[in-house]
Amino acid sequence: MAVHEQRHAREYSGARVLITGGLGFIGSSVARALVNAGAQVTLVDSLITAYGGNLFNIHDIRDRVRVNISDVRDASSMKYLVQSQDYLFNLAGQTSHLDSMTDPFTDLNINCVAQLAILETCRAHNPRIKIVYASTRQLYGKPQYLPVDERHLLQPVDVNGINKMAGEWYHILYHNVYGMQTAALRLTNTYGPGMRVKDARQTFLGIWVKNVLSGLPIDVYGDGLQRRDFNYVADVVDALLLTGADERANGQVYNLGSDEVYALKELAELVIQVNGAGTARLIPFPAERKVIDIGDYYADFSKIKTALGWDARVPLAEGLRETLAYYREHGAHYWEQSQATP
Amino acid sequence: MAVHEQRHAREYSGARVLITGGLGFIGSSVARALVNAGAQVTLVDSLITAYGGNLFNIHDIRDRVRVNISDVRDASSMKYLVQSQDYLFNLAGQTSHLDSMTDPFTDLNINCVAQLAILETCRAHNPRIKIVYASTRQLYGKPQYLPVDERHLLQPVDVNGINKMAGEWYHILYHNVYGMQTAALRLTNTYGPGMRVKDARQTFLGIWVKNVLSGLPIDVYGDGLQRRDFNYVADVVDALLLTGADERANGQVYNLGSDEVYALKELAELVIQVNGAGTARLIPFPAERKVIDIGDYYADFSKIKTALGWDARVPLAEGLRETLAYYREHGAHYWEQSQATP
Repeated sequence: MAVHEQRHAREYSGARVLITGGLGFIGSSVARALVNAGAQVTLVDSLITAYGGNLFNIHDIRDRVRVNISDVRDASSMKYLVQSQDYLFNLAGQTSHLDSMTDPFTDLNINCVAQLAILETCRAHNPRIKIVYASTRQLYGKPQYLPVDERHLLQPVDVNGINKMAGEWYHILYHNVYGMQTAALRLTNTYGPGMRVKDARQTFLGIWVKNVLSGLPIDVYGDGLQRRDFNYVADVVDALLLTGADERANGQVYNLGSDEVYALKELAELVIQVNGAGTARLIPFPAERKVIDIGDYYADFSKIKTALGWDARVPLAEGLRETLAYYREHGAHYWEQSQATP
Repeated sequence: MAVHEQRHAREYSGARVLITGGLGFIGSSVARALVNAGAQVTLVDSLITAYGGNLFNIHDIRDRVRVNISDVRDASSMKYLVQSQDYLFNLAGQTSHLDSMTDPFTDLNINCVAQLAILETCRAHNPRIKIVYASTRQLYGKPQYLPVDERHLLQPVDVNGINKMAGEWYHILYHNVYGMQTAALRLTNTYGPGMRVKDARQTFLGIWVKNVLSGLPIDVYGDGLQRRDFNYVADVVDALLLTGADERANGQVYNLGSDEVYALKELAELVIQVNGAGTARLIPFPAERKVIDIGDYYADFSKIKTALGWDARVPLAEGLRETLAYYREHGAHYWEQSQATP
């Protein structure tokens, strides 16, 4: 699935790897690439209903990974789990903007307290482990210039962005002060097979895919002219594995991104075109979304391109085609037990 | 004590003001200015031994303020205390760099969890309260250019800096999203009567003052060429009160600072000169300090100067003279029960 398959096999064959949020969209995709590379993979996930974990995400690799259902806030089990691991892909997180505003303390516990606990545990019990943290473009808030590079000020627009900012910085600090091997990737909109499609909690593209496949219209907020960049999950997996394997990444923060920048209205049209059917409509911003909307965003990702040779290789149309095909086949495992859209 | 006394009297006379960290160095100085301005002042302080609270700090205004001994982590008492207040000067915090590394979770609880709880409580029970948060230059980490303005990236070098960064941003976010009246000041090295002098937990100037008055040498780390700026506490009080009273400050972050920039070696010489006696010596950086040292720092504080008319008015030599005079008279109340220097 990942682009640099042979390279990943060289680097991860036989390695012991722990993935938090391992039953989630990106975590399970990392797991798939790693078992194909010959790694011994343990997935940690608490399967909180509102989050991204879904056992179906590993239906094709279930007997090749170890699954440990537990919560990263549970310091004692994390202490056991991180020991004797070579790598930690630290992808567990509360990611919903809106949930972080209605329940800021849960967000704080997952994105700050648990992250600090994981780092303290690794420092005490496994200080040589390599840790790659999944951070987010959300830290930048409303861009002051485009494309946004890593020198842009961090001005988060919700509690989730503030807590993720602290979580990311704990990782970098533990490199700077204790010499631990840590790195962080600031992900932009990631999409692909395995993403949460029940609702818009993880990405609006999820509910778009579900709606277009269900014959429902795609709802685009505002005038639909907000521009964004998108990464297909295989490219993100590739970035995570490259970052994990490269010592030059230690202590670094890298943007991910794509040269394909789309206005949301155009993106909706592309989804419909790739699907071969569907409709989209512009609707006014819900008030609670408007206040945290950031307008246009797309990243300058030249830092990781130059440092690690990463690039976004999967064109948006192709990635959407794969995604729609996946949910056409497996959708029932994802949109059952749907909850009220937040 | 504050510079704009008449202005403060106009604005705060009769106002109900809560000060967290109210028995600390800056909190008690704010309290003094406010009771002189005719405000009804309540001080919240938990008197944690290692922190800055000291009942002697209010010996001259004890019968003009209400003292409530409690902890900002105690959400229930905070909920009671913030109600019916007009202003909150939110100065409680864990400020020790080193303690934040040895006990990161206490720092997280005080500087993140409690701050978020205070804001949530105000939002629910007193959304019109004006909140001024004491932030710190420490958020910037090692300066990439000088003087450091508010556009400088935040790159904290210790857990305390990360947690204070989150604490500051919660305040700004609650303005941006909920329209609450909040503002933050990024304080630089603040000194004056009432500062902790038992040890270097709050500022190295504290232990310098104690040592020079005790006939002990002043220890300057490294080559002593690190340059810093310093604010006398009366100027900081002035900035806090101006910020509290001015609606234009809502949602803003302002640096404090001074045009008087001193190398630490020169500062030691000035302390000795103002004191009329004393010695200083250069000693190597302790390892745990070296790793979090930031080199030169001084602020560009033109933003608050332009917006609110604030300036640092007390010259360093004069401020040090006042400080030394205070501790010559009252030192016994500050350096008794001294703890091991961290």
